[in-house]
Amino acid sequence: MKGAYLDHASATPVRKEVLEAILPYFSEQFANPSNVYDIGSQIKQVVEEARASVAGLIGATSEEIIFTSSGAEANNLAVKGVAFAKQKKGKHIIVSSIEHHSVLNSARFLERLDFEATFLPVDAYGVVDPGRLAKAIRPDTILVSIMHANNEIGTIQPMAELSAVCKDNGIFFHTDAAASVGQTKVDVNELNVDLLSLSGTSLGAPKGTGALYFKKKVRLMPLIHGGIQENGRRAGTENVPGIVGLGKAAELAQKELPEKETHLRKLRDLLIKGISERVEKVEFTGHPNNRLPGHASFCFEAIEGEALIFMLAQAGIYTNTGSACASKALKTSPVLGAIGIRADLAQGSTVFSIDAANTVADIEYVLEKLPAAVARLRSFSPIWGKEIPEYEEDVCT
Amino acid sequence: MKGAYLDHASATPVRKEVLEAILPYFSEQFANPSNVYDIGSQIKQVVEEARASVAGLIGATSEEIIFTSSGAEANNLAVKGVAFAKQKKGKHIIVSSIEHHSVLNSARFLERLDFEATFLPVDAYGVVDPGRLAKAIRPDTILVSIMHANNEIGTIQPMAELSAVCKDNGIFFHTDAAASVGQTKVDVNELNVDLLSLSGTSLGAPKGTGALYFKKKVRLMPLIHGGIQENGRRAGTENVPGIVGLGKAAELAQKELPEKETHLRKLRDLLIKGISERVEKVEFTGHPNNRLPGHASFCFEAIEGEALIFMLAQAGIYTNTGSACASKALKTSPVLGAIGIRADLAQGSTVFSIDAANTVADIEYVLEKLPAAVARLRSFSPIWGKEIPEYEEDVCT
Repeated sequence: MKGAYLDHASATPVRKEVLEAILPYFSEQFANPSNVYDIGSQIKQVVEEARASVAGLIGATSEEIIFTSSGAEANNLAVKGVAFAKQKKGKHIIVSSIEHHSVLNSARFLERLDFEATFLPVDAYGVVDPGRLAKAIRPDTILVSIMHANNEIGTIQPMAELSAVCKDNGIFFHTDAAASVGQTKVDVNELNVDLLSLSGTSLGAPKGTGALYFKKKVRLMPLIHGGIQENGRRAGTENVPGIVGLGKAAELAQKELPEKETHLRKLRDLLIKGISERVEKVEFTGHPNNRLPGHASFCFEAIEGEALIFMLAQAGIYTNTGSACASKALKTSPVLGAIGIRADLAQGSTVFSIDAANTVADIEYVLEKLPAAVARLRSFSPIWGKEIPEYEEDVCT
Repeated sequence: MKGAYLDHASATPVRKEVLEAILPYFSEQFANPSNVYDIGSQIKQVVEEARASVAGLIGATSEEIIFTSSGAEANNLAVKGVAFAKQKKGKHIIVSSIEHHSVLNSARFLERLDFEATFLPVDAYGVVDPGRLAKAIRPDTILVSIMHANNEIGTIQPMAELSAVCKDNGIFFHTDAAASVGQTKVDVNELNVDLLSLSGTSLGAPKGTGALYFKKKVRLMPLIHGGIQENGRRAGTENVPGIVGLGKAAELAQKELPEKETHLRKLRDLLIKGISERVEKVEFTGHPNNRLPGHASFCFEAIEGEALIFMLAQAGIYTNTGSACASKALKTSPVLGAIGIRADLAQGSTVFSIDAANTVADIEYVLEKLPAAVARLRSFSPIWGKEIPEYEEDVCT
């Protein structure tokens, strides 16, 4: 069947080169890298090579990389790790209101332990105002966590300005770059961040992989306590094949980035233009320019995003409603709420995430199928073409 | 080169059947199981089948299984998860002094957050006395965590009696069964535990896999906060290949267990008998009968365990000194300290962990090579044959 997979933010196939790279590490070179004997130290070496590749992708050094099991784990380690390590200095953290659930819910967890969290509002494009961040900082603020790019609306934050505010105040700055690493240039020095989370899945590495970058001066309480793996910062036997895969994917991403980014932008802009020309009453979400090159997000009026996803899937087109939370309950996404999208319109949220393997033909196929799918769903809708009464938002947490 | 890999507690090759089972889930069936569309829900189904296999291996139901990235993560989730969820009831936990570092260091982390932890002593075999556990229980005790079998000395605890003490006092009982699942029968109902950790690596599943069993009545604070994966108890995109591999390994383990256990016992007893006949001044550690079927542990007088390991590795024989901690620093293992092994003798700790693939020939090969290696190292030793002065222990934490 003809089709177009445009949900790379949810899952990306493991790349052929990555799968080839990891295969020897399941049954043949299987030793534990903590072991001192030859076959253990050989694996340790392989893990360290992968660490150097991941560090290289983001302009870091190897000693600044901790391997984790996901971007979510990296976010938990960053937020809770700094909070627990620095709680004698203060117990206040600042996060944006459109963070990934792994940051938002880590902050809420800390609130239950007598920390205080400020959830910074964003503007209609999902942008955090640096002035507002400056005002939120208190003497007891120990961490600011603002994502590099948002996974639901694609907006990229003004990192230089946000980081400058943190530096001026001597506060650690963490960014969740799970959505952006491998899609646009992410350099920890340019971003001027102290901690940065990334996920392997969007790079074509296996699921179950991620990493946290942290500057050497950052003290971190481990999230997973135990042995001395990852220099005592993350216990548990290293997921060697996963780590090797993440290393290989990082190496490829670094090589391919400039060309890939251009390709993604082209397809994205084709899709945005095509949809705005072919479908009425659709709101484009997120920042028009400062956004992920492969990310296009919309809210279709009088449409349930999930229904549209099912209908498109019948044509082999895979997209998303924007968040795992939204995929399970008909609640308004907190991100769309934060940028002021009406609750009824937010129901029609649809996110297209493009990867290097996508083609112009994929986009053309979507543009061929989407308008009819939207029209068909609207023909069933009791609200299509009517005035929408305001109703209470039921925000997903 | 001839050789014998006898360090399965550190790492076990992924089984051929397991590797075959996981291969399609990297690049072909790669969708995110949280997604509602067809290719997502197919993966969800695959994850749930794996969950049923893991549940089946330990006599649990699927809803009682949370997939984690390691046994260490499962231990952290159990100890911290119960502590944070039940802290209004009380802030006291009890663990044995020979727990895995992931339990010990989780308990120490909680102490820093105003919880109290009691570290129960063990006898010379590493056994926790149920009477002593009963005495340690206080009105504010919320969790007892005692491992099923110890990874350094092989001792299996009197679980029925320990569990009865917890039940009598209405306190949740967690056991770390990472060393025992797949090697001896582990049934959550027979053990009568509320939570149980297991690791995939020792089952021949890929590294980066583990699971926590928890009874439905047990409220758990997530360790990794975020999305609603694992019923809201463990965020992060599911490691689908890892989970499929753990499921397949569990299915195989359940089928093969009785035969495997007999085989392991035979080899283990051959090894123990052979060493005691061929090497003088060697102390067998752990319980002589109530121990893991594939586990034999010794302390060789006037030997550095690490030197012995290097020397054996030259003959293709792979063993361990007993703990990841011990492998990095010449400190006394806390487990050996807890069972009263002299610090100088503890330096000579050597652990053999046997798996189904090992043969009588492997054991015979070890018995051929080991005595000469021990003799050679002793010939270099400044303390061999001398009276050992007592010196201060420097216990590894």
